[in-house]
Amino acid sequence: MSGRLTVVGTGPGDPRQTTPEALEAIAAASHFFGYGPYLDRLSLRPDQVRVASDNREELDRAKAALTHAAEGADVCVVSGGDPGVFAMAAAVCEAIDHGPDIWREIDFRVTPGVTAMLAVAARIGAPLGHDFCAISLSDNLKPWEIITRRLALVAEAGLVIALYNPISKARPWQLGAAFDVLRPILPAQTPVIFGRAAGRPDERMRVMPLAEADATVADMATCVIIGSPETRVIARPGRGDLVYTPRFLPGART
Amino acid sequence: MSGRLTVVGTGPGDPRQTTPEALEAIAAASHFFGYGPYLDRLSLRPDQVRVASDNREELDRAKAALTHAAEGADVCVVSGGDPGVFAMAAAVCEAIDHGPDIWREIDFRVTPGVTAMLAVAARIGAPLGHDFCAISLSDNLKPWEIITRRLALVAEAGLVIALYNPISKARPWQLGAAFDVLRPILPAQTPVIFGRAAGRPDERMRVMPLAEADATVADMATCVIIGSPETRVIARPGRGDLVYTPRFLPGART
Repeated sequence: MSGRLTVVGTGPGDPRQTTPEALEAIAAASHFFGYGPYLDRLSLRPDQVRVASDNREELDRAKAALTHAAEGADVCVVSGGDPGVFAMAAAVCEAIDHGPDIWREIDFRVTPGVTAMLAVAARIGAPLGHDFCAISLSDNLKPWEIITRRLALVAEAGLVIALYNPISKARPWQLGAAFDVLRPILPAQTPVIFGRAAGRPDERMRVMPLAEADATVADMATCVIIGSPETRVIARPGRGDLVYTPRFLPGART
Repeated sequence: MSGRLTVVGTGPGDPRQTTPEALEAIAAASHFFGYGPYLDRLSLRPDQVRVASDNREELDRAKAALTHAAEGADVCVVSGGDPGVFAMAAAVCEAIDHGPDIWREIDFRVTPGVTAMLAVAARIGAPLGHDFCAISLSDNLKPWEIITRRLALVAEAGLVIALYNPISKARPWQLGAAFDVLRPILPAQTPVIFGRAAGRPDERMRVMPLAEADATVADMATCVIIGSPETRVIARPGRGDLVYTPRFLPGART
């Protein structure tokens, strides 16, 4: 008898940015698998079972959740932000792909959420207003040479770049090295947004030009957005700067 | 006396994917500017004023909304999806950037939302599980040569590609031409997802290999997601295929 597995995205942290669909899935489920701090954001009933694990054990967590669901339980796997962006939805799919046939029979669902770059962008204006990309800077996930090649190509393409996983204790130099890859390609004044914990009480937004961008401003809770050559900064008296990327490029037919 | 202007994202269409933050902003506002079908999704009170406009008049709509807010009104500008992604947040910023100084004094906010590619991805698995980009295929916004150059560079970079504005009556051939740009670069079996109206009653999801991808499957309500060479399809007996992009690339250090 197969149960159900829903991968839930709780959004960036402000409870007002969690969708009703995610809350419905949480209310319906019996077992919750996730990184402890994400599970801590939920208001669970006494009959709902919490299985917290370390942030680095995504595949084992996915397998444990699928095992429970295959036995008939209604299981939630919990991610912050959107679970489909550098998060648990892909880990569960990987486990299904390489796991026993019975896991393919599970009623598998994903509830989308507001991912970090969207929350950061909303707080600062509209830096993702035109073509953009999202790249994980973690070289635990892919070789560093692939990352630098991707950064160079998307900068040459003129895309705004959102960096996930920019820095950690085990990866202290990669963000600075990424800025070094981009500096010869992008204008010195290209705005770089350090968006930390958007929508949470400890939120902190900083904007600096690429020429002066200081990687030590970022921490694990930061999403870094690097503008394109079109991205503009609007100074406002008594208010924070706005950063946006225009909808149109010169030479468009209208 | 300056009022407030909030750009609200209502999500992809399923009311259960609209955030409480967006609903709060809507409840607090007096005047609503937006494309008619997006305004139709709101449940407004008799005292709330609706100013619908055509989808192509974004900058005029932004200016009208700012004019009202500068006079002291509490104004909402309404977008579907996330208002920061190819939508009204950038149009309002553009208007502020080039408008009278008084518009910089307005209390300007953006509420993020679930953007179309996240909703489509959630319905089909986790195709955005690793590095990806979002590109508007509208050559009303930029020259076609820039679009083809961007497509080639991001495909060479190995990113999953989400295409917004893939097709319209006035732009019937561009999506087919985009597939033609990608076919020499990406494997023939690369999955292409046509995600139409995700989460709405008229939702329709189709997956086909790039070699056979048929642009006529798309319409204006479709977000097209083209996999990377790593993207995989999982067949499931009695259920739809899952499509996902693994979190890891070969050669990663862990």
